[in-house]
Amino acid sequence: MKKYLSYGMAGGSLHAFIGAVHRIGAGFDGIAALKAGCFSRNPEKNQECGDFYQLDKERIYSSFEEMAQKEGAREDGIDYVVISAPNNEHYETAKVFLQNGIHVLCEKPLCFEVSEAEELKKLAQEKGLLFCVNYSYSGNNMVKEARELVKNGYIGDVINVNAEYLQEYLVDDIGKGDQTMNKLSSWRKDPAVAGISNCVGDIGSHIENTVSYITGLRLKRVAAKLDYFGQPLDLNANMLVEFDNGAHGVFCSSQVCVGHMNGLVVRIFGTEGAIEWHEEEPNVLFVTKKGQPMQTYHRGMAYVSARAAEMNRLPAGHPEGLYEAFANIYKVWNAAVLKKANGEELTEKELDFPTLDDGIEGVKFIHAAVESSKKDAAWVDIN
Amino acid sequence: MKKYLSYGMAGGSLHAFIGAVHRIGAGFDGIAALKAGCFSRNPEKNQECGDFYQLDKERIYSSFEEMAQKEGAREDGIDYVVISAPNNEHYETAKVFLQNGIHVLCEKPLCFEVSEAEELKKLAQEKGLLFCVNYSYSGNNMVKEARELVKNGYIGDVINVNAEYLQEYLVDDIGKGDQTMNKLSSWRKDPAVAGISNCVGDIGSHIENTVSYITGLRLKRVAAKLDYFGQPLDLNANMLVEFDNGAHGVFCSSQVCVGHMNGLVVRIFGTEGAIEWHEEEPNVLFVTKKGQPMQTYHRGMAYVSARAAEMNRLPAGHPEGLYEAFANIYKVWNAAVLKKANGEELTEKELDFPTLDDGIEGVKFIHAAVESSKKDAAWVDIN
Amino acid sequence: MKKYLSYGMAGGSLHAFIGAVHRIGAGFDGIAALKAGCFSRNPEKNQECGDFYQLDKERIYSSFEEMAQKEGAREDGIDYVVISAPNNEHYETAKVFLQNGIHVLCEKPLCFEVSEAEELKKLAQEKGLLFCVNYSYSGNNMVKEARELVKNGYIGDVINVNAEYLQEYLVDDIGKGDQTMNKLSSWRKDPAVAGISNCVGDIGSHIENTVSYITGLRLKRVAAKLDYFGQPLDLNANMLVEFDNGAHGVFCSSQVCVGHMNGLVVRIFGTEGAIEWHEEEPNVLFVTKKGQPMQTYHRGMAYVSARAAEMNRLPAGHPEGLYEAFANIYKVWNAAVLKKANGEELTEKELDFPTLDDGIEGVKFIHAAVESSKKDAAWVDIN
Amino acid sequence: MKKYLSYGMAGGSLHAFIGAVHRIGAGFDGIAALKAGCFSRNPEKNQECGDFYQLDKERIYSSFEEMAQKEGAREDGIDYVVISAPNNEHYETAKVFLQNGIHVLCEKPLCFEVSEAEELKKLAQEKGLLFCVNYSYSGNNMVKEARELVKNGYIGDVINVNAEYLQEYLVDDIGKGDQTMNKLSSWRKDPAVAGISNCVGDIGSHIENTVSYITGLRLKRVAAKLDYFGQPLDLNANMLVEFDNGAHGVFCSSQVCVGHMNGLVVRIFGTEGAIEWHEEEPNVLFVTKKGQPMQTYHRGMAYVSARAAEMNRLPAGHPEGLYEAFANIYKVWNAAVLKKANGEELTEKELDFPTLDDGIEGVKFIHAAVESSKKDAAWVDIN
Repeated sequence: MKKYLSYGMAGGSLHAFIGAVHRIGAGFDGIAALKAGCFSRNPEKNQECGDFYQLDKERIYSSFEEMAQKEGAREDGIDYVVISAPNNEHYETAKVFLQNGIHVLCEKPLCFEVSEAEELKKLAQEKGLLFCVNYSYSGNNMVKEARELVKNGYIGDVINVNAEYLQEYLVDDIGKGDQTMNKLSSWRKDPAVAGISNCVGDIGSHIENTVSYITGLRLKRVAAKLDYFGQPLDLNANMLVEFDNGAHGVFCSSQVCVGHMNGLVVRIFGTEGAIEWHEEEPNVLFVTKKGQPMQTYHRGMAYVSARAAEMNRLPAGHPEGLYEAFANIYKVWNAAVLKKANGEELTEKELDFPTLDDGIEGVKFIHAAVESSKKDAAWVDIN
Repeated sequence: MKKYLSYGMAGGSLHAFIGAVHRIGAGFDGIAALKAGCFSRNPEKNQECGDFYQLDKERIYSSFEEMAQKEGAREDGIDYVVISAPNNEHYETAKVFLQNGIHVLCEKPLCFEVSEAEELKKLAQEKGLLFCVNYSYSGNNMVKEARELVKNGYIGDVINVNAEYLQEYLVDDIGKGDQTMNKLSSWRKDPAVAGISNCVGDIGSHIENTVSYITGLRLKRVAAKLDYFGQPLDLNANMLVEFDNGAHGVFCSSQVCVGHMNGLVVRIFGTEGAIEWHEEEPNVLFVTKKGQPMQTYHRGMAYVSARAAEMNRLPAGHPEGLYEAFANIYKVWNAAVLKKANGEELTEKELDFPTLDDGIEGVKFIHAAVESSKKDAAWVDIN
Repeated sequence: MKKYLSYGMAGGSLHAFIGAVHRIGAGFDGIAALKAGCFSRNPEKNQECGDFYQLDKERIYSSFEEMAQKEGAREDGIDYVVISAPNNEHYETAKVFLQNGIHVLCEKPLCFEVSEAEELKKLAQEKGLLFCVNYSYSGNNMVKEARELVKNGYIGDVINVNAEYLQEYLVDDIGKGDQTMNKLSSWRKDPAVAGISNCVGDIGSHIENTVSYITGLRLKRVAAKLDYFGQPLDLNANMLVEFDNGAHGVFCSSQVCVGHMNGLVVRIFGTEGAIEWHEEEPNVLFVTKKGQPMQTYHRGMAYVSARAAEMNRLPAGHPEGLYEAFANIYKVWNAAVLKKANGEELTEKELDFPTLDDGIEGVKFIHAAVESSKKDAAWVDIN
Repeated sequence: MKKYLSYGMAGGSLHAFIGAVHRIGAGFDGIAALKAGCFSRNPEKNQECGDFYQLDKERIYSSFEEMAQKEGAREDGIDYVVISAPNNEHYETAKVFLQNGIHVLCEKPLCFEVSEAEELKKLAQEKGLLFCVNYSYSGNNMVKEARELVKNGYIGDVINVNAEYLQEYLVDDIGKGDQTMNKLSSWRKDPAVAGISNCVGDIGSHIENTVSYITGLRLKRVAAKLDYFGQPLDLNANMLVEFDNGAHGVFCSSQVCVGHMNGLVVRIFGTEGAIEWHEEEPNVLFVTKKGQPMQTYHRGMAYVSARAAEMNRLPAGHPEGLYEAFANIYKVWNAAVLKKANGEELTEKELDFPTLDDGIEGVKFIHAAVESSKKDAAWVDIN
């Protein structure tokens, strides 16, 4: 019975912070080892990264296609690929790995078009392959606790949602046209690479997924007002949303809100209670029962749900952070890939990572938000 | 030269918490004394209140009209009236006091119709009378500090606004039809008394005014989705807003958000900085300059503006609360009425209380929000 | 039956912020009216204050003694005196009012010597007079809630106490000798006026009283290290304390801790739970049951104790502040004085204001802390 | 030139949470790989752990001594050992690895006796070996920022320190004698394994080290009151402290404070400013300049010091936690061991990990606190 996995990377060189986060997350629990990669189109960066991780020379590839084919053909080929290439390469890259029989964990957004997303889903199903779209915040322990609380009826029926993801790091772009392509963020601002949206695509989609993960609800429609401030892509978005159970709410995503670094805040209001979670303080969850005092749940305490308990790493009070959210995604993912490799059936709980359905939902959401804003915030249907 | 004022009350018996807040606020600085009143349509409650405050028997009136006429005719008649009667009586009451030459401080919302509001404005101008619409949060010291910071360019141009006023106290009304008229809040839920809106009218309008007071901006239009949950009037509202400078934002008001008591939170984002204020923690203001750490301003410290300093009461760290916000409104109001009585000119700074223009804006906002929601959140113009 | 009270002031001119706080607090509920006063040794300031409050000319007195004698002799004389003169005048002033049959509400610290304090107690008992020592924080609604929770066993037996009162406003005095007598605080730094301690006397004593009020425990002994930084009186104090039930803890008071305005924070730990209260955020109380999430109690909610409920003023979420803490002290005090005047018996609940016993305890505490520090933090017994 | 390291573990089986934290921390940056170990005295657990990490059979050892000798003799022997065995084995284990020429990273407390600690120091110096005592909180980015701020004079001279480390997890032991040896914590409560102190030794020593790391000050003396509540070792400690610059303060450590999970809070007050850091919210630092608003520094922002910037991992707002604090300790440690291996000189900055001097200080502190408490909180000298 297989006990360890090997994986490869498409993108994520030493110079991309998210590449390292994936490698640390994937290897956190000692199950998966990096064995192959095409880390960059730049041959030097590619080699540098492969060398640093002491890969076999022959498994440092110069293209994603080559890697997919050769790894797919090797007896000891990688079990899965991690795609952290720019957005515009997700679709083709995911497709070629699927075609070569390799499970895929892909950064979000999944791809540009809904049709592409559905094609990937069909292909994965045909091939019997697993596919994770890395909405990493669902890996947080207290996000899982929130989901359990909602699922178990603690807050009753969801009646209102207020969620936001605020950053300040592009505030200097305002009114500067395209002179502002700074190194760190420039690809996010380039439609050819980032797609039809910057702010909604990059962070608004995290709001959409985190709310969906916690509540089990899908969006029915959105009325969005995006602000471009003279840039090719949006920097700020205010949205009214309607869920499939009829509840309303607002989503606000912004890269120009001074004072906010990485402010994903999700508040779910129900007929019996409410929960609130902040990505910047991820180890606590604010939980209130109607008419009662707000309670501050701490990760790791005996009162959390069985699911949160089994996904816990450190004693209560010791902070877990973003790396550990990734590690949790990979913990579930690695276990699922292993089971699959060993020919075992996967239960629903074992599929507790963001799937192609989540990825498709994200693509639909981005399209609807952009379209709505073009129509001056008219409602646009998602589902 | 006149140094003290006398005032009367229309509404606000001993059983209405807001009546006491007005009386304490009006008399806080020892300038104004209660001398007349018609506190309730209920004769016993009316008498009880007048007796408690040791009023002259003849100055406890059985109707607002009688009070307006008789006080207007007395040589030692009241200088102003405080109207804290239910919403549906504001217009007629304000009108009769103006007609009898008495300055008016009226609870918000000013009245039901924009035409009424404009009539009151015209009447006050003709009579040369002062009129305050009691948007009490603008009395908070740190709200004044916020206004000064924006006015002085600290945050640059306003580009985004995120403001909310969340309460939980009506969550039990959901799905209960009109069986839920509990004592404390029932009039707010009755269209005949409260007008066309409950939630937007009662607390949404405070968002509108507080944002306007701090930023100096007016709303251009609103796209609102109100939730009624089977009640005659709204309990929850999510709104997209657009300001006259082109900035966008969201306003969220709710009486069904568990975990929130009186959660007015205003966040103003500009090109150079941001400010954030919470009514539940009113003595601090969160102030951030682009690229710099968030600063927690404390009321009463040497670094606040001259205006905040002159409106300060207690040394920094000693909390001021709602009564003191009212006291500040009355401090400015009493001083203005005194100056007027002494035939002096009033400067702009001396008119730093919410005016009829604010009141008119509030009525327009409520109408626009309700109309927009009827049109499924289509934009409705305000200005 | 008497329904209203009149009171006089010894000290507390228009230029002393605490005088106004007393007047507003005393009159908050419309029961007590200011009718006499000797507000300042400075004849002009005295007259100015009496005039502002429109007192009868003959009831503006030039000395406390004169006021005590004349008011004691008048048929319509004041029911009680409020002493907010400097510390060094408390003892003599309180004595002369008691001798003239007038109830006394006196600012803390009660006096300089334990023997004086006990003499006042004996005198008040002999005369059958009420005496309140104004430890104002015990007036806060949530401090009362904390007391109820402890009394009702919510936190079990008290096993540890951690309390502090931190300010920064004298940090500039460090190393400046006596050149630093600034206007606002200079009398606190002068042994002739303030007594043997500045920091412990002014704010440390509030820690002692607030902890005692909440827990019902008295101090057994203290081991204190006071820092003088070249000043005649202490600016900083760190103390180990032992309570009469054997529990230990620390008290820290400071006027040189940058970042703190008026940081009274009390944390009481028991075998079954814990409570935490902050003066700067007085409307909430942090309440935790062993093994459970921390709960944020809000003043005014239905879950608070009957005692907190009856002392509540505003709906939950609307902040009450320092004036309202004073108003609560006066609410209980005025009711007690009225009952006494009407010849009724007072129950224990009706004596829920800080008494001479609290005042005596405070004087003992200050002496013990100073003595301990002289002995290099050796334990000194209090009780 | 050597670019990668191998290390072994003494203690830290799969069943000990801290073992995993060390392995993840050591390997975080891809520099060091686990190659040998004696993870447990229990042969099955030892084998299980070695197998899980796919070690060579011959490098899974049955005793620390054997491991030290054999690895010391191998050409490809481990570069360093990580000691996470129980406290009572630290001294002997560290000694035997040093004797066999292997660098040592040892959990705190270093050992039981000061003489042992000094012997280890002498031995390491003679052998020219590096030695890290794992006070892990000094690895936190914002703790490093705090140290830089103090070093650069931002807060002036340190005049007062208030630091605490509060937990609740042993509150049920109170009054239960030695019947309470639960699995998770029992060894900490056993003098034979934990040494002379439980609470001060386990968490009080972290206060001592973190304060020392940030301020650069050493303790001169301590006056401590420890509470045992019927247990063999202390559960609660309140301490007055005096630093070598004459400043005073309090340290409070407790395992019986309900509501606190892992509450290490350090507040350093200086003549010009103050800083405050919380382990449970490690990504921010509260920084205040005298007379100015408190600022909330965020890890990863451009305004932090060069040192904090070079030790940063994630963009501001994405939380780093305990694993990353360990990873930072190891980042510096691995780099130092590599340089040493390559025969290069180490600068002071490159020795920015807790050293034997820190370890010695910790042992002295624990002894002084316990001795002081035996003498009823008399001062006991440390340095």
